[in-house]
Amino acid sequence: MSRLRQDLATRTWSIIAKERGKRPDDFAKTKAKEKPKPSYDAKCPFCRGNEDKTPEAVFSIPAPGAGNDKDWVVRVVPNKFAALAPPEPGTDTGREKTGIYLEMGGCGAHEVVIEVPDHSQTIATMSEEEVARIVHTYRERFLELDRSDWNQLIIIFRNQGKEAGTSLEHPHSQIIGTPVVPQEIRRRLEEAQRYYDDHGTCVHCDILHHELAEKTRLVCSNAGFVALCPFASTVPYETWILPRRHASSFGVLTEEGADLLAKLLRETLLRLHHLLGNPDYNYVVRSAPHHSAGEPHFHWYIEILPRLTTRAGFEIGSGMNINIVAPEDAAAQLREAL
Amino acid sequence: MSRLRQDLATRTWSIIAKERGKRPDDFAKTKAKEKPKPSYDAKCPFCRGNEDKTPEAVFSIPAPGAGNDKDWVVRVVPNKFAALAPPEPGTDTGREKTGIYLEMGGCGAHEVVIEVPDHSQTIATMSEEEVARIVHTYRERFLELDRSDWNQLIIIFRNQGKEAGTSLEHPHSQIIGTPVVPQEIRRRLEEAQRYYDDHGTCVHCDILHHELAEKTRLVCSNAGFVALCPFASTVPYETWILPRRHASSFGVLTEEGADLLAKLLRETLLRLHHLLGNPDYNYVVRSAPHHSAGEPHFHWYIEILPRLTTRAGFEIGSGMNINIVAPEDAAAQLREAL
Repeated sequence: MSRLRQDLATRTWSIIAKERGKRPDDFAKTKAKEKPKPSYDAKCPFCRGNEDKTPEAVFSIPAPGAGNDKDWVVRVVPNKFAALAPPEPGTDTGREKTGIYLEMGGCGAHEVVIEVPDHSQTIATMSEEEVARIVHTYRERFLELDRSDWNQLIIIFRNQGKEAGTSLEHPHSQIIGTPVVPQEIRRRLEEAQRYYDDHGTCVHCDILHHELAEKTRLVCSNAGFVALCPFASTVPYETWILPRRHASSFGVLTEEGADLLAKLLRETLLRLHHLLGNPDYNYVVRSAPHHSAGEPHFHWYIEILPRLTTRAGFEIGSGMNINIVAPEDAAAQLREAL
Repeated sequence: MSRLRQDLATRTWSIIAKERGKRPDDFAKTKAKEKPKPSYDAKCPFCRGNEDKTPEAVFSIPAPGAGNDKDWVVRVVPNKFAALAPPEPGTDTGREKTGIYLEMGGCGAHEVVIEVPDHSQTIATMSEEEVARIVHTYRERFLELDRSDWNQLIIIFRNQGKEAGTSLEHPHSQIIGTPVVPQEIRRRLEEAQRYYDDHGTCVHCDILHHELAEKTRLVCSNAGFVALCPFASTVPYETWILPRRHASSFGVLTEEGADLLAKLLRETLLRLHHLLGNPDYNYVVRSAPHHSAGEPHFHWYIEILPRLTTRAGFEIGSGMNINIVAPEDAAAQLREAL
């Protein structure tokens, strides 16, 4: 019989229905064969030398001892097909009534973090130094975007592979700032607040303490961060990276914290890479909205979701997921993967 | 500049960011070429003659003048890989505490509606009579499953094509009964209740009246139902089929209503089929949970979501969607599609 499990933080139920005999190899086998990627692609707008194919950089890290601007190792540009963009001066950024509905101009931010010059890499194959630069860049851009009045929520995310919705293969992440706090985020905050009211503690701090003692769902950890497969995992091999120290906003990450995060993010993705044969995945930094940045009840973390199965009608209709791999099995396999 | 639009019922925002020059043909072109399907596949567990490859039927409609059980035109069987199943007598179906978490046995129901004997069909290519049988079957099974104590929410859904998560190509729908009311459904009810408190009317009744007067987002309609592209569409060509008459539960559908629904469902899917070249899609019947079946503020409807784009990190992290086709454009194209 399958089991229903409740996410303690969101109170969402997942159905854990193990498929008999399904092994990590089976997921790796179903992945479409990919051609090896070249280190440089003349048509790729993100490759070094093709800077004129993107809008002008808003941030970059020059290569050590670089002679000029073009010799970058990380480069951040506004998305050419931005979903949201900073408003022109004088533009109305308020709510407008259209018939019975509300709408508003799409102000905000939408940036692309070009992670490395080398077209063929992914985080799992990069050096620790390279990944550290990416996390430091996330931090810089987060702090910068957080200064704008219209960025109420800043979401840092990475789409790896076609199943995860990426259209460009050059290694990159994205950052979007939204001018509203989305309903789903508001509800996460409310549930976390309710837990805090009842317990006087942060729900994710409690999860972290419980999991560190219980051990079966731990993947790996270091002095600053812990990677684990959550109790009510929504998809096979879902993994969270939680800071040990309570903080609601990614923006409070220190330089030293960023280094520790980079190390554990790289290690976790390397374990997934080995175990599942370079799986497609999304990850997203779940951080508190601007005005909730100091709350004691919200805890930022990174959610990694491999795209091994497809969200279908039941998941859409119920908001619940059917997960065919138990998180204890996933975590045990990930612990053994290196 | 893109626009943000709020769904009046759920208060979720969507970003409508039209991609310049994107036409229905462009979506059709990106779909992987499919081999024509045979009418019968010896390996398919849902084809007529292969009944021993599925669990025993719980419901079927015999062909007119059928000589025996095997001569069915619609057949409903328990899912062989059921996510949820009726509990064995004496099984504990209550919540259990596991460490700091809640879990429970996976009791409920998971059935497959084998829609027609012919392996090669889809709803858009079936006759009106065939689609009417499917909708009548939905109704029969909904009423039957609704009698069980443990089915708190019944979700009828259809996954069409690989992008929509189907693993078997024989035309079929699924019905799942869950032993909890999922958090997302609870929140939809709460928002609908809040609207009702403020206005004294059902939010979907108000949407229907507004859209019938406003006309730009209407697709097609008949005496019982209206198909429209919602104001804050979450994906390109999202279409809802709403009953004109208020009812919170799909279970109150009359025989005559089922015929009218079947006609409009078929017509709507046929329009999508013509316009987008047999797109993959999910549809889901959004009906009130068992204990809210009589509420004046909740309105059942069918949500059709073509799978033309991929939900990625931003959508996962924010619960908001970026939709590159305005619903007014989608509706206009669908009106012209036949």
